[in-house]
Amino acid sequence: MDRRSLLKGAGLGAATLAGTTIAAPALAQGKRELKLVTTWPKNFPGLGFSPERVAERVTAMTEGQLTIKVFAAGELVPAFESFDAVSTGGADMYHGAEYYWQGKSKAYPFFTAVPFGLTAVEMISWIYHQGGQELWDQLAANFNIKPFACGNTGVQMGGWFNKEINTIDDYRGLKIRMPGLGGEVLRKLGATAVALSGGEIFPALQSGNIDATEWVGPWNDLAFGFYKIAKFYYYPGFHEPGAQLALGVNLDVWNSLTKPQQIMIEDACRAENNYNLAEFEAQNTGALRRLLDEHGVQLKRQSDDILQEIGRVSGEVLREAAATDDITKQVFDSFLAARTNSMEWGLISEDAYKSARRLPFEF
Amino acid sequence: MDRRSLLKGAGLGAATLAGTTIAAPALAQGKRELKLVTTWPKNFPGLGFSPERVAERVTAMTEGQLTIKVFAAGELVPAFESFDAVSTGGADMYHGAEYYWQGKSKAYPFFTAVPFGLTAVEMISWIYHQGGQELWDQLAANFNIKPFACGNTGVQMGGWFNKEINTIDDYRGLKIRMPGLGGEVLRKLGATAVALSGGEIFPALQSGNIDATEWVGPWNDLAFGFYKIAKFYYYPGFHEPGAQLALGVNLDVWNSLTKPQQIMIEDACRAENNYNLAEFEAQNTGALRRLLDEHGVQLKRQSDDILQEIGRVSGEVLREAAATDDITKQVFDSFLAARTNSMEWGLISEDAYKSARRLPFEF
Repeated sequence: MDRRSLLKGAGLGAATLAGTTIAAPALAQGKRELKLVTTWPKNFPGLGFSPERVAERVTAMTEGQLTIKVFAAGELVPAFESFDAVSTGGADMYHGAEYYWQGKSKAYPFFTAVPFGLTAVEMISWIYHQGGQELWDQLAANFNIKPFACGNTGVQMGGWFNKEINTIDDYRGLKIRMPGLGGEVLRKLGATAVALSGGEIFPALQSGNIDATEWVGPWNDLAFGFYKIAKFYYYPGFHEPGAQLALGVNLDVWNSLTKPQQIMIEDACRAENNYNLAEFEAQNTGALRRLLDEHGVQLKRQSDDILQEIGRVSGEVLREAAATDDITKQVFDSFLAARTNSMEWGLISEDAYKSARRLPFEF
Repeated sequence: MDRRSLLKGAGLGAATLAGTTIAAPALAQGKRELKLVTTWPKNFPGLGFSPERVAERVTAMTEGQLTIKVFAAGELVPAFESFDAVSTGGADMYHGAEYYWQGKSKAYPFFTAVPFGLTAVEMISWIYHQGGQELWDQLAANFNIKPFACGNTGVQMGGWFNKEINTIDDYRGLKIRMPGLGGEVLRKLGATAVALSGGEIFPALQSGNIDATEWVGPWNDLAFGFYKIAKFYYYPGFHEPGAQLALGVNLDVWNSLTKPQQIMIEDACRAENNYNLAEFEAQNTGALRRLLDEHGVQLKRQSDDILQEIGRVSGEVLREAAATDDITKQVFDSFLAARTNSMEWGLISEDAYKSARRLPFEF
């Protein structure tokens, strides 16, 4: 448990460290081992595949000059200590969701997902082409980290509940796992919202420490077995309309890489963004069918009345977050401009197309 | 103009050729120059940026071991000869849209866009994770090509018209530029549909050789200046709900690359898929505003009656295409399964979320 502070205390840079303690044979061939810690259980579908794939591809592209070794949550540091580990040089990279670091700055949730925020494609549009990356770089540089968009779950489900949610008052007193600003919205509605890492959720639900939980969507939720305890599965997930995953690289490590190596890591992340989102899209329907057909789960839509009230409170929560510091205000303004842009274009592009595709014609 | 057959006649492989005729200094340093021909005008926004970016990044990642040189349409071969040039080894790669090659097989349009087919995210979900790539590899191998998804425009607009389209009969006698199977749908409705490459459209519209044209969306259409001639701008584009762009690599060239080089090209394409789609999303709204506010364009929605009839005819056209050969039938069946999958998941994910986001709450 104290390995991180021990390493930090020794005052060694990450690369040297890896070489000294683990990768001596690799280093002997002029190769460098980088430690990638994650917030996900080992080989967890979707979320856990992304860091493995990035590591494998960068290692292959560099012919092992950069050999990236992945550590699941708890293997090197606990899930929620990944950020500090990378910030201080105890690990070289993390893969996780930025809203886990909202204790560092309220700007962080905007780079994963915020209530009634951006979908997956809207998110990369903001990050790559509407100023998001520049603000993210600025935010993360304060913690000695270089951040990249690296995977996206697509629209998430609203979550698993052991009772029906028929009115907004049903959130009052509810103990629910929901991280990020979505949790704050539910707190304003009288719920007790907690942020547990993936591996902690099932036991908490089983023991009754929580009454409800959101996680991701059918593919990931099926793997965790929540259906064994909670039978009502609500949609849509107002709180995560496209959870952007992230790779954070220790800034000193990043600056020590060659330009070609930097492009390989950047392209591997962009590629993973695309590949991972596509995988969620491919897997969710089949997993949902199994949940409904084999496990007796009841699929429920949140009512418009509830969603509208949650929407109002979401706006409040985002504006309050924006007021906490200067960088969060800048991030919020930039994010909101991208949201307006995408909502305007969406009306006449994807929304109009999808509604036309649902017209009753034989195909 | 006859350069391609000349080169072919000489019986030289692409790599040797590049070295002999152009890249002697590069080869002297052990570097290899690859010729990438495109179907796009030079530096054309969005579509033309993709091959430039892929070339630049692969060249940088390999430190020039693979130096990719981009040729715009007409610089080495005309736009629509790109495929044959790569197939026969006169060029090493092309960047374009696969539906341009529907004369080779009716399976090709399914890898760009078909009427009432898949959106951008649905498309990569099919290609990467639901069997699309395997079928595409099989199809393209017949022409000595290895294909990659490499960029996507997102949902396109319906097109530019010099008269209003109020009933399905208004398509009768209309001379319109629309490639791929969308063109076949309009032919069944009595239109004359032609496939012109990008650079040929404006003169055809100006001279009255065509009455209407689809191209891409506001960002690209603004650049081509169609608003100067046609004032009615229709949406949604039933024919291209997310035009997948493609990089095709000569199969002998592909097989001659090292594994790390192959991964770099593959990741550069996946990355471009993501980055390019995000760029269209970012640019379209602003371009549309300029078209409406500065150029007096009238934005029109196609009526549900028209879209429903087009939908019915689209189903007919796709089933007819599927009957043309065995590979097209396999592609059609696989594509249709992915479409059903995505439409089912879309209802409770992105569609449900976006409709909730449009509820009337202050944000």
